[in-house]
Amino acid sequence: MEERTIPYKIYLEESEMPKQWYNVRADMKNKPAPLLNPGTLAPMTAEELGHVFCDELVAQELDDTTRFIDIPVEIQDFYKMYRPSPLVRAYCLEKKLETPAKIYYKFEGNNTSGSHKLNSAIAQAYYAKKQGLKGVTTETGAGQWGTALSMACSYFDLDCKVFMVKVSYEQKPFRREVMRTYGASVTPSPSETTEVGRKILAEHPGTTGSLGCAISEAVEAATQSEGYRYVLGSVLNQVLLHQSVIGMETKTALDKYGITPDIIIGCAGGGSNLGGLISPFMGEKLRGEKDYRIIAVEPASCPSFTRGKYAYDFCDTGKVCPLAKMYTLGSGFIPSANHAGGLRYHGMSSTLSQLYDDGLMEARSVEQTAVFEAAEQFARVEGILPAPESSHAIRVAIDEALKCKETGEEKTIVFGLTGTGYFDMVAYEKYNNGEMSDYIPTDEDLAAGLAGLPKVE
Amino acid sequence: MEERTIPYKIYLEESEMPKQWYNVRADMKNKPAPLLNPGTLAPMTAEELGHVFCDELVAQELDDTTRFIDIPVEIQDFYKMYRPSPLVRAYCLEKKLETPAKIYYKFEGNNTSGSHKLNSAIAQAYYAKKQGLKGVTTETGAGQWGTALSMACSYFDLDCKVFMVKVSYEQKPFRREVMRTYGASVTPSPSETTEVGRKILAEHPGTTGSLGCAISEAVEAATQSEGYRYVLGSVLNQVLLHQSVIGMETKTALDKYGITPDIIIGCAGGGSNLGGLISPFMGEKLRGEKDYRIIAVEPASCPSFTRGKYAYDFCDTGKVCPLAKMYTLGSGFIPSANHAGGLRYHGMSSTLSQLYDDGLMEARSVEQTAVFEAAEQFARVEGILPAPESSHAIRVAIDEALKCKETGEEKTIVFGLTGTGYFDMVAYEKYNNGEMSDYIPTDEDLAAGLAGLPKVE
Repeated sequence: MEERTIPYKIYLEESEMPKQWYNVRADMKNKPAPLLNPGTLAPMTAEELGHVFCDELVAQELDDTTRFIDIPVEIQDFYKMYRPSPLVRAYCLEKKLETPAKIYYKFEGNNTSGSHKLNSAIAQAYYAKKQGLKGVTTETGAGQWGTALSMACSYFDLDCKVFMVKVSYEQKPFRREVMRTYGASVTPSPSETTEVGRKILAEHPGTTGSLGCAISEAVEAATQSEGYRYVLGSVLNQVLLHQSVIGMETKTALDKYGITPDIIIGCAGGGSNLGGLISPFMGEKLRGEKDYRIIAVEPASCPSFTRGKYAYDFCDTGKVCPLAKMYTLGSGFIPSANHAGGLRYHGMSSTLSQLYDDGLMEARSVEQTAVFEAAEQFARVEGILPAPESSHAIRVAIDEALKCKETGEEKTIVFGLTGTGYFDMVAYEKYNNGEMSDYIPTDEDLAAGLAGLPKVE
Repeated sequence: MEERTIPYKIYLEESEMPKQWYNVRADMKNKPAPLLNPGTLAPMTAEELGHVFCDELVAQELDDTTRFIDIPVEIQDFYKMYRPSPLVRAYCLEKKLETPAKIYYKFEGNNTSGSHKLNSAIAQAYYAKKQGLKGVTTETGAGQWGTALSMACSYFDLDCKVFMVKVSYEQKPFRREVMRTYGASVTPSPSETTEVGRKILAEHPGTTGSLGCAISEAVEAATQSEGYRYVLGSVLNQVLLHQSVIGMETKTALDKYGITPDIIIGCAGGGSNLGGLISPFMGEKLRGEKDYRIIAVEPASCPSFTRGKYAYDFCDTGKVCPLAKMYTLGSGFIPSANHAGGLRYHGMSSTLSQLYDDGLMEARSVEQTAVFEAAEQFARVEGILPAPESSHAIRVAIDEALKCKETGEEKTIVFGLTGTGYFDMVAYEKYNNGEMSDYIPTDEDLAAGLAGLPKVE
């Protein structure tokens, strides 16, 4: 196919948008390990999970055999308001880098939540509404998930209680106001409003909070309130399922133009974006139909894939959640305050952890000054101001494109640009002022985090 | 055509994007009045204007006969990075309002500058580069224009000096950081760096600045520096020309689905968005081919159309610019500090002023609490968090749709959604906290502003 026939942005027609989510677990020989009851160490049953999550979402969480799951029409309609997202050919970046590589990015930032998180938020809100619930609770770190959930709940007229990691609550008052504009209540975590919050505050006065801690509070708030359930924006199988819409659109767009990627790159915190983006490609790989290099990129300051351990761990600091088998830094691990932006979770999606352990994907960690350099370079030629999280993927995409420049290889690189950095200007200011630095945890830091792993088997 | 065949978002193909701008002045019987030399009161010559503006832009400013002007390929390529912008059918808003009206909005916020301003910024930067200039200077109020220009200059490797109205500089540090990320220098205005700035500071110590004042500083900075010219984001004929890309895309998208609007609505500060959106429709109206109701919406706190005077006035506070004939509140008018967001300029585009004076469009002023109510309502059902400026148009679109609900008329309403409110969360916070109020200038306030009009004829 002639090069220039590929437009800057490939948009699908509404009729080409996915009507089903793809469940990559159905194609995995080694299934992700089940969630365990922390008391009995037996796999969590649907009934047990139903106290925390909506029934339909529990079913999706446990289903590792159904390959395609219908997207309800109500969710399809909502998707039509901000999807399909464009698959962009980064012509200007390629030119700037003078690389023979062909670079594409799937841009998920064109919605008010500013990221891909809305894809799962709207699904989770829909099922909560369908079950007749009053509302949902959740945690948020950088604020993308909380914003997305607020939007989704306002659309379905559900109450929404967000526990926001204290350091973000203070650094990102504007994120908080977006959530409030959508009618959500926002509480800085740890807070005095929950038992687990009070306990953590007593043990660690002055803590700036963590995702693991906010999760504990949100779960408690949900299980202690009539008509509420807890929802989570990443890590879970159900979330990766909803996010498969990213990968399916990407694949349809590429197929339309006869493009086969060589390398697929995504940033990874809990794994929702990466898992969604790679799903259909990983499916082909699992079924032996095609091969792709898949690279997960994580912050050097929170390196669960590259320096963590594959083991059962608590999903939250308060240890009220089930145990999950995952690459983890230990539920007590808190990334250095030096680290700007998201991708702070101590563990990684069980699905992605299994795929990584099976050698089906690579992982790379990058330092934040290098990440912001890439962000600035990208912004100046491609226009979009990227989120720090997404910029991890940009960093590695640029690195790979520069390798192509050396070797002369015309590789096709696809990366996920998960969101915009409009609410991350404190971090950009630090970078602009030359005040940003890197912190890589020492082996001792990591050993301390891992010392708290639960004994399983 | 069957109703539901219209998608939520109409995107044009790259091949359907405009290759020419449309110059509405070519179809006006009564041309907009020329800019005058404030000393001689004679029309400004191209040579005189060339000291301030780039040569090609001067030609565009003065050309009121050429109907279509080619968009250079370099600009078309940049447009392809973030355009076409979607024309969205507001199905969810219609449903919420229970109106038989059909509502569409042209959404210009899907780019990092967050607004339509980029359409003209990239054109002005291109012509500056082509002329071999080192850089450009400008002013910015709410920050959308400054951000857009920073992006455009970074793309063409031009230096960019932005004078930012002091109150915005202080209230919107994040806007400033976006501009710095794109390599621009940002100075709060009035500043000590220019003669006119020092004079204004001496006369009004403690002033929080105004657009008119920042313009004076930017013009001085351009004319006093070798290789620099001044660029402006609104008001001028050339800007309306570039912004015609909005209206042309809108019209192509509507034509594709056989839709004829009854009412076209846009917010109006200096007039760039409104002028661009309505251009091709106004052209049909001027040529007697079709009729449309066209409504300009302005803040009740800065009501140049609805309460101003049609007269020659200074474009800037320091009176260093040419005189323009326009609806104006007087170059000394400064909107109440109570007013949040943009649309603060004391005057209105000469082109729009002439069209309004000729009875070809209507104007309406709205109060800001009503504007934020509309913004919140829109955000909750349509997902997008709108800029306060854009929300003026939303307010009137909702009002018109509610009239249709009363009368049962199925009118088709198109409005311009110029941008996102990500950098306006201070104003949203005020609204969320119930602390927002309205201020409408008294007749005495307005008389004071108009007392300073220059004597012409």
